[in-house]
Amino acid sequence: MFNLDVNEIRKDFPILSLQVNGKRLVYLDNAATTHKPVAVIDAMKHYYENLNANPHRGAHYLSVAATEAYEGVREKVRKFINAASSKEIIFTRNTTESLNLLSYTYGMKYIEPGDEIVLSITNHHSNIVPWQQVAKAKGAVLKYIYVDSNGRITPEEIRNKITSKTKVVSIGHMSNVLGVIYPVKEIIEYAHSMGAIVIVDGAQSVPHIKVDVTDMDADFYAFSGHKMLGPMGIGVLYGKAELLEKMPPFLTGGDMIEYVYEQETTFAKFPFKFEAGTQNVEGAVGLGAAIDYICNIGLHNIHEHERRLTEYAIDKMKEIPYIHIYGPKSADEDKGGVISFSIDGVHPHDTASILDAYGIAIRAGHHCAQPLMRFLGAPATSRISFYLYNTTEEIDIFIDNIKNVRRWLGYGS
Amino acid sequence: MFNLDVNEIRKDFPILSLQVNGKRLVYLDNAATTHKPVAVIDAMKHYYENLNANPHRGAHYLSVAATEAYEGVREKVRKFINAASSKEIIFTRNTTESLNLLSYTYGMKYIEPGDEIVLSITNHHSNIVPWQQVAKAKGAVLKYIYVDSNGRITPEEIRNKITSKTKVVSIGHMSNVLGVIYPVKEIIEYAHSMGAIVIVDGAQSVPHIKVDVTDMDADFYAFSGHKMLGPMGIGVLYGKAELLEKMPPFLTGGDMIEYVYEQETTFAKFPFKFEAGTQNVEGAVGLGAAIDYICNIGLHNIHEHERRLTEYAIDKMKEIPYIHIYGPKSADEDKGGVISFSIDGVHPHDTASILDAYGIAIRAGHHCAQPLMRFLGAPATSRISFYLYNTTEEIDIFIDNIKNVRRWLGYGS
Repeated sequence: MFNLDVNEIRKDFPILSLQVNGKRLVYLDNAATTHKPVAVIDAMKHYYENLNANPHRGAHYLSVAATEAYEGVREKVRKFINAASSKEIIFTRNTTESLNLLSYTYGMKYIEPGDEIVLSITNHHSNIVPWQQVAKAKGAVLKYIYVDSNGRITPEEIRNKITSKTKVVSIGHMSNVLGVIYPVKEIIEYAHSMGAIVIVDGAQSVPHIKVDVTDMDADFYAFSGHKMLGPMGIGVLYGKAELLEKMPPFLTGGDMIEYVYEQETTFAKFPFKFEAGTQNVEGAVGLGAAIDYICNIGLHNIHEHERRLTEYAIDKMKEIPYIHIYGPKSADEDKGGVISFSIDGVHPHDTASILDAYGIAIRAGHHCAQPLMRFLGAPATSRISFYLYNTTEEIDIFIDNIKNVRRWLGYGS
Repeated sequence: MFNLDVNEIRKDFPILSLQVNGKRLVYLDNAATTHKPVAVIDAMKHYYENLNANPHRGAHYLSVAATEAYEGVREKVRKFINAASSKEIIFTRNTTESLNLLSYTYGMKYIEPGDEIVLSITNHHSNIVPWQQVAKAKGAVLKYIYVDSNGRITPEEIRNKITSKTKVVSIGHMSNVLGVIYPVKEIIEYAHSMGAIVIVDGAQSVPHIKVDVTDMDADFYAFSGHKMLGPMGIGVLYGKAELLEKMPPFLTGGDMIEYVYEQETTFAKFPFKFEAGTQNVEGAVGLGAAIDYICNIGLHNIHEHERRLTEYAIDKMKEIPYIHIYGPKSADEDKGGVISFSIDGVHPHDTASILDAYGIAIRAGHHCAQPLMRFLGAPATSRISFYLYNTTEEIDIFIDNIKNVRRWLGYGS
């Protein structure tokens, strides 16, 4: 049953009452980053006023308190994505670091000359460039899964690209450009049958839909705190225990060691093996508060709310003849709250700049997905993206001002 | 002229009025992490309530605001350590990541078989283990500068260890165990004359003494926000432009690229080349507020305050016959506010645990410096470490309760 009171939710987000250029902020750039509810901001303040210390290191009260706070969030994350063990949850800085950790450790150790690494053409740069480095260093082959005209991946394409030569498949769960949620469970099942492991970039999915890493049988799953109401500077890498066990460490230094001698070092067990130096406890605490907030609203409610907003927006946009939508043109179950579009005769950057004059925040550019943009034949698009605090009224304001964009640039309405 | 009102300063730190085990917190673990003044906590809150966005990426108001906030702190950091250009300031997660960035890029690219890497035996694990990885991967030789019985590095030892075979010297500016501030300017001058570059780990120095990277001619200089009143999750790497220019990137992904094609990528210029993915703007903003706070008090005042506390503590400790101090036994100009010690017949962990019962937070263990501990012949020590908010009254409480430690364990007073 759908139950989400957006007006109540909006009261929790101080920044949403901001005035921008004399207008109330309409924030439609949630695929880039999300705003923070009071509960998250207060959790970090509470941490610094009551619990702050370097965790894992001291015998004193605050160090124990900081350790409990940090490890408590590890368990909260485990539950949130249904991992088997909290030891399989590694805190990183962001999705980018999570993916680089994998390219530097799993990739550099287990990829050999001639092996194939399969990516999706819809991947974000953070899930392309690290694998280019591995392919270059190891003499491996990079292959891309392409999408159909609606931005979807067909079963044939999966079977064409993933073969017995494939060692790693790394794919975004949801496109940050097209908003398509990909059938990762099916891709994982097929890749496993070919002997490949699968890494899923969940930066765009974890904030919006229920993710169950055990059900989908992902080998690795990465996401960021800041795109799901949490603070910047904290991310997560989930990995299966048997894979984490055999991987070498990535960053080395304090807290990830067992014994350090002048010439050699033995390492701690995972997850600590992958968490060198003073960790971002504040960030973890904020992420924990964000997970609580999301769970309290319910991911099914959030997804349905966004689906309704997407449907509303697409319907309005389709009525305007000079708007072109990239990707799915209806709010199907596999379409998240991201819509990329262009306006005939208007550069996307002009669209964003002119809308900004009306207090509307949208994104324009290549969205850190240049290979996809090239594939789509569009060097840049405009993009709106929703979250739980957006409203149909905001979409109305956006639509009204799209007409202003055309007027500003001298077109008729 | 010395001018620091510790009672006024303490009012700025909410956590200092915390009650621990029925006693007011006495926090003497500042070398591990420091507490945050209201100004820093409020700066992060203000950021999330007024400025939050993904920087460098959007044409909208908030993205511009976040970019200005982030880049403004880069310039603030430049000024704080007197770098030539803000482009030489790279934001990282912490000192550990700054040093790993160097080992993975400069180290893996420029170290060759037979080259020598010279470390100090006083280095923190974060400035040892990354270089072990480089030495192992490249067939290089790791050498250690040892310290004398007072924990100091002699000119002879520098000349013995740094030779024309040395390619990299990586040294901690101040020991987190012994509190000695090392003569990095002299070491750098000599290393440069031998053709080596010098990396300085400033995690323990930047919070406490004026650091001028131009005057000392450091090639790289690393430090963390959380040890200098700033938030966790933000660190800095300074590097000379000509070195950053020729280094390959470390983490790859969004924001550090120029053009991404399916099979290859061209990279942005530094500092952006080294900052992949969504950066921790909140962390940078908090660091900026911390720098403002420190500059307002004055580093010369902070250093002198800590020197007086150190002198007061050492004098009191020397009166107690069963306390043994490691490193310098007087508060000389090259002694920072860190004192490691042992109590005859008491394990350091028991010292810390018993003091905790009286609300006193100290550190016990190997302090992430096992090679130094082995060199000192002590598997663990207890450590107290000061910052601008500590008082002589707190030292009195510490000293009084040291006597309780002995009583608890059945010794006479």
